[in-house]
Formats: sequence, structure tokens, C-alpha cells
Amino acid sequence: MSPVITLTTDFGHKGPFVAVMKGVILKRTPDAKILDLTHEILAHWPAEAGFWLSRAYPYFPTGTVHVAVVDPGVGTERDIIAAAFDGHIFLAPDNGLLPLVFEADTSVRIYRMSADWHREQDWPQPSNTFHGRDIIAPMAAEIAAGRLKPEEIGPRVDDIVPSLLDTPLVRNNEVRGSVVTIDHFGNLITNIDEKLLAGFKNSRVRIAGMRLTLEQTYGNTQPGEFLALINSFGVVEVARAEGNAADALGLGRGAPVVISDTTTG
Amino acid sequence: MSPVITLTTDFGHKGPFVAVMKGVILKRTPDAKILDLTHEILAHWPAEAGFWLSRAYPYFPTGTVHVAVVDPGVGTERDIIAAAFDGHIFLAPDNGLLPLVFEADTSVRIYRMSADWHREQDWPQPSNTFHGRDIIAPMAAEIAAGRLKPEEIGPRVDDIVPSLLDTPLVRNNEVRGSVVTIDHFGNLITNIDEKLLAGFKNSRVRIAGMRLTLEQTYGNTQPGEFLALINSFGVVEVARAEGNAADALGLGRGAPVVISDTTTG
Amino acid sequence: MSPVITLTTDFGHKGPFVAVMKGVILKRTPDAKILDLTHEILAHWPAEAGFWLSRAYPYFPTGTVHVAVVDPGVGTERDIIAAAFDGHIFLAPDNGLLPLVFEADTSVRIYRMSADWHREQDWPQPSNTFHGRDIIAPMAAEIAAGRLKPEEIGPRVDDIVPSLLDTPLVRNNEVRGSVVTIDHFGNLITNIDEKLLAGFKNSRVRIAGMRLTLEQTYGNTQPGEFLALINSFGVVEVARAEGNAADALGLGRGAPVVISDTTTG
Repeated sequence: MSPVITLTTDFGHKGPFVAVMKGVILKRTPDAKILDLTHEILAHWPAEAGFWLSRAYPYFPTGTVHVAVVDPGVGTERDIIAAAFDGHIFLAPDNGLLPLVFEADTSVRIYRMSADWHREQDWPQPSNTFHGRDIIAPMAAEIAAGRLKPEEIGPRVDDIVPSLLDTPLVRNNEVRGSVVTIDHFGNLITNIDEKLLAGFKNSRVRIAGMRLTLEQTYGNTQPGEFLALINSFGVVEVARAEGNAADALGLGRGAPVVISDTTTG
Repeated sequence: MSPVITLTTDFGHKGPFVAVMKGVILKRTPDAKILDLTHEILAHWPAEAGFWLSRAYPYFPTGTVHVAVVDPGVGTERDIIAAAFDGHIFLAPDNGLLPLVFEADTSVRIYRMSADWHREQDWPQPSNTFHGRDIIAPMAAEIAAGRLKPEEIGPRVDDIVPSLLDTPLVRNNEVRGSVVTIDHFGNLITNIDEKLLAGFKNSRVRIAGMRLTLEQTYGNTQPGEFLALINSFGVVEVARAEGNAADALGLGRGAPVVISDTTTG
Repeated sequence: MSPVITLTTDFGHKGPFVAVMKGVILKRTPDAKILDLTHEILAHWPAEAGFWLSRAYPYFPTGTVHVAVVDPGVGTERDIIAAAFDGHIFLAPDNGLLPLVFEADTSVRIYRMSADWHREQDWPQPSNTFHGRDIIAPMAAEIAAGRLKPEEIGPRVDDIVPSLLDTPLVRNNEVRGSVVTIDHFGNLITNIDEKLLAGFKNSRVRIAGMRLTLEQTYGNTQPGEFLALINSFGVVEVARAEGNAADALGLGRGAPVVISDTTTG
């Protein structure tokens, strides 16, 4: 069975940046199946990449190697890490990208690439500005092919750079979170997991001065109406039926969202 | 030979929406070749997806499974259908997307997914807002692998939701159609098939107050000139040589286009 | 081992233009691995495609077939050429796209497709406006599968259309080049290869009235600062740390960049 590798970057689609990572992988592991998770992460914002990876990885085959390169610190002293978690492997710069995937789960094993290990490989001298191509892609190809194990790249660590994303604030009958990202439709996607609302009976969502109830889906509202729902990745989302909520509300990343249980309130 | 699956959506390239559909497919059918037809269908407009599928499907291998998810009604009572046509399989919501592919051809066999059949599968509980991932992708994977036949998902039907796109109005020496979509170059692509002009000797194209003759290709005009031609998908297109016709004319989807035969007129 | 084919176009991601090229290839060569190099070449500008191809091709496996379709002259008398160079095969219209890949290297072998050879194939009649799909894609599929050799498509030639891109002007202690393309981050990428600066001790970069020194990487500057560096593809690039240099400076393709050695100056 062909090994599967996913790529998540902030490279966009101009130029051959993503393509050369794939070329490097196929040179080493010709039967790899390489899937684009997304290349439109907000430039220089690792937290969004971590958020999407944490929500998306379970949909890929066990054993998939997930490569995430949102790397404003490339060429400085930041490290590269590999993590084994829930049957998947994750490779990324150590810059706050990956912690959202594991959260507080202690079953994760994280390894920091050592300069010694890297020196021992017969890889071309890496550039200063594209470690995704020169270090992480060949590492992914070797791991996906079964020729390298994450624990071989360096020491096990547990002090990686924490996530840049605030976790929601939970009080008795209220959850305060924020918008993490906006999808192609302009839906505002928050960091509020449905689990945080488990005890709520009548959830009221407040955003940009509006009060919304939680709906089941988009289709039961009139076009143009705003609505809030638990989306298909298990987090609260604010949408506008057949419209663009982000544009209409003038909101973006970081906008506060408060959910309260009106029954208990 | 690896089965081929194409994906057509209005999801754009932000977030992992397309990627998780591919993950779901590869979990079930690891050797599937998954091709992106396009993910830039105008949001919530199934007709454009149907138009492009109808023009593009013959270029893929016989037996290809074409998945189209432009689905503003997801989570409401709308159905999911599978169609066998011309040696290809098509899966989509029943919302007017697919009829453009078959038009009046009676050889098509269409099946409506039954709730009973879906319940009998051992699939995870579908979300309310992403049936592309939770129902259509696994169905495509099973059909592509040869483990499922379209006729097994539910009863054969012939009363599917009709296309939202008007068909051109044909009178003796005149065809009245409209712009269906605009490509990356700003070319205005109409719903007027070259077959409708079969008897015309001197076609004159009227759009936005301009009168154009039908050219063979772009390159024989001066940069900046407007021209009309039969494009590579067999429909009339209005272009601006080395320019953007849509921007220059301020036209978009739905703009009227009239072609008349000046010989007979 | 599956043959690898890369695609470089100015088609963008709207509509099925890239997808049908892949369909045509898979019909003939079902096990081909088809990689998108980029489809966001500036519309109608072959030089950018040649620039990126020249910098990117070494990252792909030996034997890769690189297809480049930026083809404003499609349907006119322009030719189609195939080139064997450095263990790779390149297919493109003869419009100045490919010369940047070979530069003055005389080991390249270039063949011009003859009308006779094309007529002898059992291919469908090509459209007037999409030779990428109708001629170059099937040619790539046949070459990738090993059923066709570049030298079989027509006579060897050495008088192809030269590049549209000026080469940098080199004087004793000064190199004058220009911006070739802009990446997703707004970095201004020039045609000045690091080799041209081999003898320089203290390089000073002048662009838009600013004087910059050459840095090693992005991360050592303060956010918002402008910097120049040798990028990961070996050319001089002007960037803004965690910002967009092109937007901030109002510069684009063609903007002049001068590098001088202040030691000798």
C-alpha cells in the first residue's frame, strides 16, 4: 500500500514552492501519495495550520505522515520536530504549530531533530530559507517509506513551543472563544469545541453585537440570515446562509465569540 | 489499473475541506487516482458545476467516478443521486447540478440514495453540513473500487430536480443564450453549443452592444481587440486578445448573448 | 516506477482546463504521477514559466517530463517543441518559454514537431485554442510511458524563439537585473543568479531608492524591515520580514534591481 503524505503550508499557489517539495519526496519514495491539505494558511501564522491539522488528520489513513510548513523563523535557531500521535506522524518547525494537535494528551511522543543526526545524512546542504524542501520533505519521504523512525532524528522532548492560540475561557454557563479562521464561503470558524457546550440546554451565541441560536445546518435559514452551528469539524461556526459572514460583519481572525446557556443564566 | 475519481466543488482552496474528502476515499480505496476538476465553482451555484462536468467528463478514462459537491441545501431534505451515463458514473446532490450532463439523453440511469441503504452501511454518523465528506466520498470510493454499484444505493428515478440554467432560445436564424461562467483569463463562456450554429453561414455575435464575427482562435487578433469564437469545449466564447473581456465589458454570469446568421437575415 | 509529469500553466484554478489535460494523460498512461508545478503564471507571459521551470526542474526525478503551456499564440503558426536536457524532457510552445531552462548550455537537444508526424498519429482533431490538451498532453503521456522519443516528433533544431526576458547586465563591480516574478508572500524575485555575485565582498542592493545589504535569511530582521537575500532557488530576492514587499514598495515584474560591490566601489 502506498504511503500517504499530506502537506499544509502558507505558500499559496504561485511559483513551484509546493511542487518542489513533492519532487523531493518522489525522488526518495516514488510510490508516495501526496495530498495537499491546504496551502492557504494565513501567511506566517502557524496556529491556523495546527488548528486545521488537529481537526483534519483523523480523516486520513493510519500511518499518514503530515508535513506542516508555516515557518517565519526559517534559518534562525528554531528547531524541527517530529511527533507520533494517534497512529499518525507529524513534522513541523517547533514554533507553536503542532501543540493544537495533541493538546493535553500525554500519549504523544515528540522528537527534536539534532544537528548531529542531520549532519550524518547524505542530504544536500540546506538553503537558509526553505527547510520545508531541504529538510522536512526528505525526512517525510524517509519516514513514509519506513526507512526512518521519528525517534531516530534526535532526543525525545516535551518542552516544545506552546500554541499561539488562546484556549477558550470556560465558566459555569459561559464559554468565551474566538474566530480561528475563515473558510472560502466566509464562514467564521471558532476555537469552541462542541464538547465545551455538552451541558448547555439553550445555547445563545453572541458575536459582533448579534445574538444567534445554534442551528443544525445552513439550509433551514433564509438566504442572507446569520446563523451559528456546530460545523462538520466539531467547532462552533458563524455563517450567513448563501452569503459571506466575514465580509458582512467585517470580522476576521481573533474576533471574540461568547456562548452562554440561557436556561441556567 | 487504478480507479479514477474527479472532484468538483465550490470549496475553494482554504482549509482542509477537499483534502478530507480525499483522505476518506484513500482510507477505503488506497489505489484511487483522485483528480481535482475544479474547486472554484461559484459558491452555491450547482449549474456551473454541471456545465463544466458536461463539457469535461469525456476527457477522463471510461469508468471514472465524478463527484460534484455544490450543496447549499446540505442537511435539509434534498436527496443524493448517482447516475450511470456514457460509461462514467456521476455522484451529486439532487439540486439541478447533474441534468446538464445528460440533457435529453434517455440512456442515463439515475438512482436516488435511500435512507434505508445508507443506514445499512457501517459508516460513521454523517455531519449535518458536509455530506460530500461523510456520504458522497465513501460512496465514490466504494463504487470506484467495484464493491458497490449505483443501482444498489436506492430506487431508479427519472424525476430529478431540473437544471437551474436556461437553455438557449433558438429561432430560425438566431440563437439567444447567456454567459454561464468566466475563466481565469476573463473569457466569457456561454451556453451556446456549436451544434446550434450548424446551419449558419455568417455568424454575427452581439454582446454588450458590440457586434463580433466568429474567429478561429485568439492569436489572429490584435492585443486588446474583442473576439468571439467556438472554444475548445465546443461552446461560443467572447474573449479579449491578451486581455480580460469580463473586466473590460463589466459582464458576468447571466449576461445575454445573441448570435444571428447575417446571410439569411 | 511510475513516470512523473509536471504541469506549468497560466490557467489558474477556475474551470476544468488543467484537469482535462490530466484526464488525457491518464487515458494513455494510467500510472503517470502528475504534479502541478504552478498554474498561476502571469497570464500570457511565457518567460515567468521558463524562469520557474529552470529553477525547479532539478528537484524532480530524472526522466520527468515537464509540460509548460503558456500559449497566447495558440492556433497560429507557432511551433511546438520538445527538448531533452540534463536527464529531463521539456514540452512547450516555441514562444520563448524554454530558453531560460537551457541558457547557453549546448548539450540540449531540441526537436520541432512536424505537421507530418502529428498527422500520422491517431489523435482526435485538435481544437484551435487548447493545444495543451489536444497535442502536448498526449505527447507527454506517450513520452512518459516510453512509447515515444522526443527525436521522433520532428527535426532537430537550434533556432528556437529566444527568451523574452533580458539577462542581467554585468559590469566590473555591478550587476543590473530586474524582478521576474512575485511569490505568494509578496517577495520580489529577481533574475540575478548568485553566481554573478561570486567575486563580490560586500554586496549592496538598490531597489526603489532603498539600499539593502544581503542577509542570510528572513528571521534575523525585525518584522516590517526590508531585506535582500539569496533565496532558496539561488537568485537575489527582496523581501519584507513578515510582510509583503511588492505591496509595500508598489513594485512588480520588470522593476530594476542593481547590486554593487561596495568594497571595490
